[in-house]
Amino acid sequence: MNIGILGCGTIGGGVLKMIDDFSAEKGIYVKKVFDLPSKKDMLGERFAATPDEVCLNDEIDVVVEALGGDKFPYECIIKALNSGKSVVTSNKEVVSLHLEEFYALAKEKGVYFLCEASVGGGIPLICSLIDSVNINNVSRIYGIINGTTNFILTKMAKENVSLDDALSEAKRLGFAEYDATADLEGLDMTRKICILSSIAYKGYVPYVNVYHYGITKVTPEILSDVKANGYTLKFVAESRLIDGKVKVSVEPCVVKADNPLANVNYEFNAVYYHCDRNDTLGFYGKGAGRFPTASAIVADVARIANGNGKYYFSNNGEFEVSNFFDAEYYVYKNGKGEFVNGITNPSDYEFVARLFKVED
Amino acid sequence: MNIGILGCGTIGGGVLKMIDDFSAEKGIYVKKVFDLPSKKDMLGERFAATPDEVCLNDEIDVVVEALGGDKFPYECIIKALNSGKSVVTSNKEVVSLHLEEFYALAKEKGVYFLCEASVGGGIPLICSLIDSVNINNVSRIYGIINGTTNFILTKMAKENVSLDDALSEAKRLGFAEYDATADLEGLDMTRKICILSSIAYKGYVPYVNVYHYGITKVTPEILSDVKANGYTLKFVAESRLIDGKVKVSVEPCVVKADNPLANVNYEFNAVYYHCDRNDTLGFYGKGAGRFPTASAIVADVARIANGNGKYYFSNNGEFEVSNFFDAEYYVYKNGKGEFVNGITNPSDYEFVARLFKVED
Repeated sequence: MNIGILGCGTIGGGVLKMIDDFSAEKGIYVKKVFDLPSKKDMLGERFAATPDEVCLNDEIDVVVEALGGDKFPYECIIKALNSGKSVVTSNKEVVSLHLEEFYALAKEKGVYFLCEASVGGGIPLICSLIDSVNINNVSRIYGIINGTTNFILTKMAKENVSLDDALSEAKRLGFAEYDATADLEGLDMTRKICILSSIAYKGYVPYVNVYHYGITKVTPEILSDVKANGYTLKFVAESRLIDGKVKVSVEPCVVKADNPLANVNYEFNAVYYHCDRNDTLGFYGKGAGRFPTASAIVADVARIANGNGKYYFSNNGEFEVSNFFDAEYYVYKNGKGEFVNGITNPSDYEFVARLFKVED
Repeated sequence: MNIGILGCGTIGGGVLKMIDDFSAEKGIYVKKVFDLPSKKDMLGERFAATPDEVCLNDEIDVVVEALGGDKFPYECIIKALNSGKSVVTSNKEVVSLHLEEFYALAKEKGVYFLCEASVGGGIPLICSLIDSVNINNVSRIYGIINGTTNFILTKMAKENVSLDDALSEAKRLGFAEYDATADLEGLDMTRKICILSSIAYKGYVPYVNVYHYGITKVTPEILSDVKANGYTLKFVAESRLIDGKVKVSVEPCVVKADNPLANVNYEFNAVYYHCDRNDTLGFYGKGAGRFPTASAIVADVARIANGNGKYYFSNNGEFEVSNFFDAEYYVYKNGKGEFVNGITNPSDYEFVARLFKVED
């Protein structure tokens, strides 16, 4: 089976290396890699100067999209699917916006569209969720699905450093991008929880309608106060399907020490979901990093090679989305935190965090 | 696709109900169910008086083995595979003894052998492990993979009851069998860790050579002493691949509160494994119970129906097996616990528990 890769950065380059490592054994070969001309020398004969040399190439069976961004990857994915190629992507921006269209087009063309790496890095989460929804009704999903912000909050709490210092360390270690705004403000987790929710609830959950509240206002003083109250602060994404509508929240949450999210630290991610027949399932692993993410992409490629990746989205339309403001919240104002039943506007306080309980 | 079920008890009956619930939607039908004559009225036309009416039935594509035990299920599985039928089983006794033969025969016949439900109940663990070993080297597995004993230890620790009372409660709730010896003494977890290890390390790990030490000697006094030392007691299975040999242990372990196993309570299970490219992956869910286990079986059946379950065991022979006696241990004698570096014989003490650390 022949692979084309779009983008040879951290992730795409990791995929190239992994597939090259076992090409002979598995019969999977990378034929073309599209990137900027600066990569031409490194890639040699496999260098592709345009995405069309990959997406429209008759020799290529599977296109791995590892470009990042939105509009350009969208056009490439559509072109590849229309040319009868299967597509594997780790791009949550483009998946969260267009998953309905990608799945429908893949079905129409009889090819695969797989996006395991778009949520939870190397965790085999989407494939498990797809198996679960095949024989269960899923009604709730929650977890920590951003490695950058979990690293920052863990570092701040355990080592008593400022948010800026923790962010710098995350960048130094490769857990945060140059512009970490989408991580810090929750947009990244919003996209990811909406991808999971769309698959779990069998309809599109539009991320643009989701309330998210970031961690930029978190200070060591707030963390100390949270701890003094007997809690740990985690940045959590959660969604629930209730009476045909979806509640989604991406916001800091206070959790007790015996909460399964309390021990998920640094760049690790964890996701739990509730099934009607199978109760709660949980998944844990590295949510960021070159080889964890590349592993998830290559696992998708291997599924296609083994004929094991068939999945077509059950699309029952678009869900109405609301927030969790009626829950119990920890609110911080004038140097003091307290708990209140429900909030109307987060900006009434210096900082807010929902009280997150598994048994809710 | 037509299914035959061997055994219509808690698990087999759960599978029957689940498949009947969505037969029309999925095109999967239960044609025959073998069980004792007492089930004849309930099963009607689908009742099979002998296993041959299932295993040799030309109309049946997949045989679900839910009998329990060892010799009789073994004969049925071999017969079904030899007749060109795929087999799905939750039976860890028979899988831990014969997995090499089952996988080889399935490969020879071009059919599927799937055993997701044999370890970790409803957790999608074996399918994830198979995906992981396809593109990673796995070197360590650890977890809590017996719901009965985890329920008992949790109950004893949180509610200060005796082992006998906790066991009675587990039986009342359906989390323990009438004869819980295999659970309490660790034989059940030994079988399960050997199934996982065989798949992960690509060679047979014979469970009969594995050291296991049960929880029958645990008392409220020991639990109090463990707690006073700052630990929680968990019954843990662990294996490691080191220089082509395998170390396996199934023994009580003391863990710190921030250990990911510390918050796995009651009938829940959790398993973690280390991959070279993908770092640590973890899985959590109900390790026992009718519908969690039936869900795993039905997920395997659905994989076969979708053409998604192909897997053939990479068999590199049988591993030499040793124990973890050189590790740090908590030892209890004359009403007092202490830590020692290595033990030579567990029976030198009233009770022993290994100090389990993730970072070891």
